[in-house]
Amino acid sequence: MPTPISFLSDFGLQDEFVGVVKGVLYRISPASVVIDITHQVPPGGVRPGALALSRAIQYLPPGVVLAVVDPGVGTSRRPLAVATEFGYFVGPDNGLLSPAVAMVGGASAVHEITNPEVMIPGPGSTFDGRDVFAPAAGLLAAGEAQLSDLGPEVDLSSLIPMLLPLPRVEPPLVLGEAWWVDVFGNVETNVGPEELELVGLRPGDQLVVRVGASTHQGRWVRAYGDVADGELAVHVDSAGLIALAVGGTRADEDLALTTGMAVAFGSLSSPA
Amino acid sequence: MPTPISFLSDFGLQDEFVGVVKGVLYRISPASVVIDITHQVPPGGVRPGALALSRAIQYLPPGVVLAVVDPGVGTSRRPLAVATEFGYFVGPDNGLLSPAVAMVGGASAVHEITNPEVMIPGPGSTFDGRDVFAPAAGLLAAGEAQLSDLGPEVDLSSLIPMLLPLPRVEPPLVLGEAWWVDVFGNVETNVGPEELELVGLRPGDQLVVRVGASTHQGRWVRAYGDVADGELAVHVDSAGLIALAVGGTRADEDLALTTGMAVAFGSLSSPA
Amino acid sequence: MPTPISFLSDFGLQDEFVGVVKGVLYRISPASVVIDITHQVPPGGVRPGALALSRAIQYLPPGVVLAVVDPGVGTSRRPLAVATEFGYFVGPDNGLLSPAVAMVGGASAVHEITNPEVMIPGPGSTFDGRDVFAPAAGLLAAGEAQLSDLGPEVDLSSLIPMLLPLPRVEPPLVLGEAWWVDVFGNVETNVGPEELELVGLRPGDQLVVRVGASTHQGRWVRAYGDVADGELAVHVDSAGLIALAVGGTRADEDLALTTGMAVAFGSLSSPA
Repeated sequence: MPTPISFLSDFGLQDEFVGVVKGVLYRISPASVVIDITHQVPPGGVRPGALALSRAIQYLPPGVVLAVVDPGVGTSRRPLAVATEFGYFVGPDNGLLSPAVAMVGGASAVHEITNPEVMIPGPGSTFDGRDVFAPAAGLLAAGEAQLSDLGPEVDLSSLIPMLLPLPRVEPPLVLGEAWWVDVFGNVETNVGPEELELVGLRPGDQLVVRVGASTHQGRWVRAYGDVADGELAVHVDSAGLIALAVGGTRADEDLALTTGMAVAFGSLSSPA
Repeated sequence: MPTPISFLSDFGLQDEFVGVVKGVLYRISPASVVIDITHQVPPGGVRPGALALSRAIQYLPPGVVLAVVDPGVGTSRRPLAVATEFGYFVGPDNGLLSPAVAMVGGASAVHEITNPEVMIPGPGSTFDGRDVFAPAAGLLAAGEAQLSDLGPEVDLSSLIPMLLPLPRVEPPLVLGEAWWVDVFGNVETNVGPEELELVGLRPGDQLVVRVGASTHQGRWVRAYGDVADGELAVHVDSAGLIALAVGGTRADEDLALTTGMAVAFGSLSSPA
Repeated sequence: MPTPISFLSDFGLQDEFVGVVKGVLYRISPASVVIDITHQVPPGGVRPGALALSRAIQYLPPGVVLAVVDPGVGTSRRPLAVATEFGYFVGPDNGLLSPAVAMVGGASAVHEITNPEVMIPGPGSTFDGRDVFAPAAGLLAAGEAQLSDLGPEVDLSSLIPMLLPLPRVEPPLVLGEAWWVDVFGNVETNVGPEELELVGLRPGDQLVVRVGASTHQGRWVRAYGDVADGELAVHVDSAGLIALAVGGTRADEDLALTTGMAVAFGSLSSPA
């Protein structure tokens, strides 16, 4: 089987950027199926891109991952190709790849892409997705290049990490943060069910959710449909994290919640 | 030839949902081409999703259809796999599949997907598209499962239908409804040309179109370009239904028309 | 290898139009990979569509290009299939194809698609993308039709050109125009670096940029990251044209610039 290429970016779908990158990939590795993870990462949003990639990675086929959210394009940030047990990750060294690489067991080798012979000599220095990353990904997928053909090996520990906020368990509360709002308005937090259990909460429980200065009462349920319209549903989402939904409407709007805001959980009796 | 999979959802393209489902499909049936029908059905919009699927179905390649607009995910609504002469339809039992299944000649067998061995044991109960529907669609496309492997057969007549409003011919008027506004602002109604002919209208005629409390004069034309700027074009659209366009602008905005609003048609002499 | 089909349109991704066209292509040429260039050309935007196609063409694989931005659908504008050294271009005769055809060396033959046997007899006259252009593109890609099967040859010189504004060098100024704003808010002009050099500007120079009635100071840099937040970066973009970016924000918003507005460049000492 040819090697598939999974592709994530912040290029959007309005311009021809994604199509151009796919054209480059096809010209180098025509038998590779390209799976679009998403191209609507917020422009320059390295952290949301890293989170999306890490949520997706375990469902993608082993092969090559091409990820480009690259506000530092054209500067000294390094273009990298990373070997893992899953396959190769190709993208900028800005933390974008790190959580997904960690999820598949870490890097076994990291090379900086410096060889001009594996790049497309395009005008400008603003589209490394096309000129640097896509050719590298295509060559690796086609088996026409080894990591060492792309450029020198660099120290594994020099890979820029993605620092993600951890929830804090301070009984009777769990203090976390909203870190993703999906298309349906559901709000994922960085809190896991195990943290809620550490403060005595159990599935089925009523609980208190504090968002900024407001306090809401919700219920730990299994599915969106388990709450009435307007009721706050606290649930384990498809990534295994505690998320907020509201029956019949968008939770982000109902709770005035955006990515990065603090969210605390506690029992009804806690002084939330 | 491998079996293609046509895929429709309300997942949007901002999050990684569509990419994750395609990853699952690829891992199970790598040779299947996946055709995206659309993923921007309005969130939870079962009826617009059903209409889009029924408009598309006759142009799609026979094979597997995966359709997920599923506001009841995680509740007792049944996940289904439906056999037809076209191939298999996989999706929730909420009316989404019914019009398209009817258009290809109806179901020959319906099975509820209940076998945990054909599901992905993911966290949460909010992403059956990934955990239940995609594996079923992939296994059917790959020929690695029969319907009976997915779960028990259920009664054909238990399939939830999609109730669609019919136009009413009440001479001198035809009373219908707007049921789709496309990206260009063209408004499709549930009225067919045969209904207009029942009240004496013919292609080329001037006619009266009543939208809510306002009355507009238009002309039954063949193409958008047949009317002047600002003129109302009544035409048979690409699905064979009577639709409204306005020369040089968006009909939905010009007529203040949204999906679900009443639209009536009559001749110039009718008391519209 | 099967022939790939690169596909550009203004159909958007909200409706099922793109999926339907791909269904038609698959039914005719199932082995052809379809590369989506973009489907979010502004509705009816023949010129932005032509520019996007011409920016993309050199990165796409030789084969068939299907391009549909077709405000005149159903009128007397001609549906065309154009032979070039790159392969076939299929689309409406409204200037959409012309710049890309020119970039690949021009047309060797142009045929009007008139043969009803190569069309899908769909209802209405509003979706030639599905009924006329997709079948022609699919048949050419599958090798099941020659140009002469589609309809009569027409005169090469009858192809409608796309008139694009040229920049004017009027020392000490270069007078140009904004002609594309990308998803990041970067503004491409129709000015090339060679024009700036004609008025004495060099990479690294400070320069003056006049937008409408306002004058801004900027610097000719290599990469976005070479300027501080709020600073105006003048650079050669990925298509080889002079473009404007602003550190840390969107240039289009910061400069109140939209497509079609006049942009002038000069040295700091020029009376800009």
